[in-house]
Amino acid sequence: MIAALDIGGTKIAGALVDRDGVLVLRTRRTTPAQEPADAILGSVFEVLSALAASPLWGRVRAVGIGSAGPIDLAHGTVSPVNIPAWRDFPLIESVARHPALAHRQVMLAGDAVAMTAAEHRHGAARGHKNALCLVVSTGVGAGLVLNGSVHHGLTGNAGHLGHISVDFDGEPCPCGARGCLEAIASGTAITRHALALGWQTPLTPDAAGVAAAARAGDTAALAAFDRAARALAAGIAATAALIEIDIAVVGGGVAQAGEVFFEPLARHLRGYAAMPFLKGLRAVPAELGPDAGLVGAAVLAGAGVPPLATVLVDGNR
Amino acid sequence: MIAALDIGGTKIAGALVDRDGVLVLRTRRTTPAQEPADAILGSVFEVLSALAASPLWGRVRAVGIGSAGPIDLAHGTVSPVNIPAWRDFPLIESVARHPALAHRQVMLAGDAVAMTAAEHRHGAARGHKNALCLVVSTGVGAGLVLNGSVHHGLTGNAGHLGHISVDFDGEPCPCGARGCLEAIASGTAITRHALALGWQTPLTPDAAGVAAAARAGDTAALAAFDRAARALAAGIAATAALIEIDIAVVGGGVAQAGEVFFEPLARHLRGYAAMPFLKGLRAVPAELGPDAGLVGAAVLAGAGVPPLATVLVDGNR
Repeated sequence: MIAALDIGGTKIAGALVDRDGVLVLRTRRTTPAQEPADAILGSVFEVLSALAASPLWGRVRAVGIGSAGPIDLAHGTVSPVNIPAWRDFPLIESVARHPALAHRQVMLAGDAVAMTAAEHRHGAARGHKNALCLVVSTGVGAGLVLNGSVHHGLTGNAGHLGHISVDFDGEPCPCGARGCLEAIASGTAITRHALALGWQTPLTPDAAGVAAAARAGDTAALAAFDRAARALAAGIAATAALIEIDIAVVGGGVAQAGEVFFEPLARHLRGYAAMPFLKGLRAVPAELGPDAGLVGAAVLAGAGVPPLATVLVDGNR
Repeated sequence: MIAALDIGGTKIAGALVDRDGVLVLRTRRTTPAQEPADAILGSVFEVLSALAASPLWGRVRAVGIGSAGPIDLAHGTVSPVNIPAWRDFPLIESVARHPALAHRQVMLAGDAVAMTAAEHRHGAARGHKNALCLVVSTGVGAGLVLNGSVHHGLTGNAGHLGHISVDFDGEPCPCGARGCLEAIASGTAITRHALALGWQTPLTPDAAGVAAAARAGDTAALAAFDRAARALAAGIAATAALIEIDIAVVGGGVAQAGEVFFEPLARHLRGYAAMPFLKGLRAVPAELGPDAGLVGAAVLAGAGVPPLATVLVDGNR
């Protein structure tokens, strides 16, 4: 049994996860994202305490954390964009101080890397030696499977597809670069683009609303999804050209749009992945849904030989 | 001792290479690129025969080939863009038929992957666990070092940086995609762009001529190098965001331009590699020059445990 945490700007979720990836106990708190660092850690501790109160806690052998990024595995710290008070926050060390954690190892990964581990072990990337897994929602996150294993990268940020430039002369991105994929293909960007194209929103002004309008044939909504799908196809094809993945697994809110998203994505992927050795590349929906972060954090923490010795902390030191 | 071949659209080079990467014997033929498949293989055999005539041949334990791509490691075939008669040509099997090769293993890699192996073992990427090595000349080729080893990819085409899109709405590329890096940043593209900007060529109309003009302060030439450097910086930064490399080694004719190329490359790299975890990324000149393909083919063939069992052929079968 593994205790898993999924820490984001909106919620802090926790679960006890068995070896089949089943969440046998779950709990969550709203992230007090605008409060001081200690208050946010307090909410994490509340989640851990709720899990530790379970009679199953005695069977827990490690703690896995999937956190919003960027993270820094080399130092065990996180700096989630949407949690301003956490900048280079020593998350592994802090979590390890929870009294119930004595002697249990703590493992940290980025949230998209955790999702990748989940889809690779239990979901749509199962059996693939090389894969890209994306979360397309308010942002664009991703993780990589290389030679059969999740590829963290030295600092844990590998697979950072949201901030590759697919438009090198394009609009400045808040990250400092130009034409980043996230700024074109996220749900936020899709909504903004649909509105700019004249979408008259009868529904909620978000990606789900644009998707509903696209299904009803709204041309602005369809064009907005097409542009996002083109940019994503370019980014997925670039990843395939660089490391020879044969599958891209796409989850997150935007992927919930279904055919109005996956049809243009598949079509444009054929265009951008034009080299002969890329012909087998395809994009498929994620299978695990919003629990993927928790399941993946458990997969990584339970892997026995952790990918990075530096992320291991004895909870009782 | 390894026998190495470097097969391109212009020349077929061969060498005997010792374990320090020193070419102790070398020979070459012009590639009869427009002739039938057998005639081209005949030139390869002439190179092999010249090497086999050496008294050192008895010490040769394997043959390494770096070939222009695309290649297909799974089938041992090559389809070099500039050698039309070789399409899915069974290069490993054909080379293995040379009478002097009895019992010697034949190892195949793409030419840019071979260059990467050379720079990683003996050159500018030495000591780096994760690296990108580029050849920027008439085209743009590249290879990757991941977790301390050269990453071939399933078909041997990993690191195909020349055909990632850095301009997803850009010009169609002959490969079928749009805005490919090669179409913006190759020596050919730099020359074309300088001419389009009004460069009055007093020298040869090639990248070396543009570089000389840039050094003399010609604004069109400087702008052409700047644009290529921006596109390359975007592609190198994308690679770093995906797999966390910390160094990009750049060789090939365009890199010979020196400061007029590396100064804007470094500057734009700071712009596109803006995420905190990419701050350490830098681009440096290759160290091994035009022999890198031969040296790298020898490194890969001499590695003992070849990366792909499928590329092993007993020369005497």
